[in-house]
Amino acid sequence: MSDTKKMCVVVFGGTVDKLYPAAIMASGAVMNDMEVDIFLTFWGLLAFRKGTPKQLSSVSKDYEELGPEMMRVMSEKNVPSWYDTLVQAKEMGNIKVHACAMTADLFEMELDDFEPIVDDIIGVGEFVGMSAEADTTLYLG
Amino acid sequence: MSDTKKMCVVVFGGTVDKLYPAAIMASGAVMNDMEVDIFLTFWGLLAFRKGTPKQLSSVSKDYEELGPEMMRVMSEKNVPSWYDTLVQAKEMGNIKVHACAMTADLFEMELDDFEPIVDDIIGVGEFVGMSAEADTTLYLG
Amino acid sequence: MSDTKKMCVVVFGGTVDKLYPAAIMASGAVMNDMEVDIFLTFWGLLAFRKGTPKQLSSVSKDYEELGPEMMRVMSEKNVPSWYDTLVQAKEMGNIKVHACAMTADLFEMELDDFEPIVDDIIGVGEFVGMSAEADTTLYLG
Repeated sequence: MSDTKKMCVVVFGGTVDKLYPAAIMASGAVMNDMEVDIFLTFWGLLAFRKGTPKQLSSVSKDYEELGPEMMRVMSEKNVPSWYDTLVQAKEMGNIKVHACAMTADLFEMELDDFEPIVDDIIGVGEFVGMSAEADTTLYLG
Repeated sequence: MSDTKKMCVVVFGGTVDKLYPAAIMASGAVMNDMEVDIFLTFWGLLAFRKGTPKQLSSVSKDYEELGPEMMRVMSEKNVPSWYDTLVQAKEMGNIKVHACAMTADLFEMELDDFEPIVDDIIGVGEFVGMSAEADTTLYLG
Repeated sequence: MSDTKKMCVVVFGGTVDKLYPAAIMASGAVMNDMEVDIFLTFWGLLAFRKGTPKQLSSVSKDYEELGPEMMRVMSEKNVPSWYDTLVQAKEMGNIKVHACAMTADLFEMELDDFEPIVDDIIGVGEFVGMSAEADTTLYLG
């Protein structure tokens, strides 16, 4: 048995502010030499459709007043996008990105319809099995 | 000590798109022969008031543009409702559904005011105790 | 090694209804004699800026119809605010409140800019390390 700690992350939310934490938490896990399994589902999966990460600009409506300010500050400070942050973390560590089979089926999408960062399409049963063995699991709603 | 793995799920969100994952994650746990404890709180509990699951049609405002498309596709493909999916998972596996006592008190609701899938009303202290022993806990915000 | 159970909580959401569960879950952990580490990030951190907890009144737009009713009932029943609930839990138990360094940097905020309940500013790597050792971790989206 390996001593490597594992983190599982469910990415359900699909606005820019909700996707940043997926990338940031995964980066934090990589800093701790942890393995990461990311499960993209619902709006979180739709955000990874080919071409979407570059276009996506929506911020959760709950923070409409603060959203533009956050986006402006991020742009001023040249903060990399949530997608580039995740790509970078994946290059540096052991991160696997899985698409939820049910959501993919629903929208009749195949692996090729997603950004190349997505490794495969798996069922929820397989992901929950991973999560049961992980040291920590985050559900990003 | 039993070898059965356990999952805890907090259901805070109360829109259709946020309730589906509660049912789907619970189904995934059942596929893995895991025990599941679901804790319904705030908007998640209000969604289980008698009669509400059948009427509920709201989708998170963050995905207003994608919501109608998702609902249309689900209807076309005869995807069972989030509530029926959860009922089915509960029939097949070991799922307990708990209402949050604080939320129930706040709205002066008793066990009889909820859909029959709700097993009991428990305090947050009892739920957190379950969660501390679980192999994985998801907070569905 | 200590037998004390530990809970980690990420507070990402920053509306009143999303902040209550942070305080309530932490209280539940204190009831179970657990140690709690709370990590405030994004909108959750902005809610802890000096002066903000008293002014904050927003409820998630997904529950616009139910929100005013919930706020009215809470006020009628003299339910303490989410912030006072958290302060009380912290006085009774072992809760540490950490601000996310990345969010603080982004908005050029220092420890002194936050309510006194915030203990320190830490990086996501340090928090994920805590979470990997915790018995349960909740991400409040």
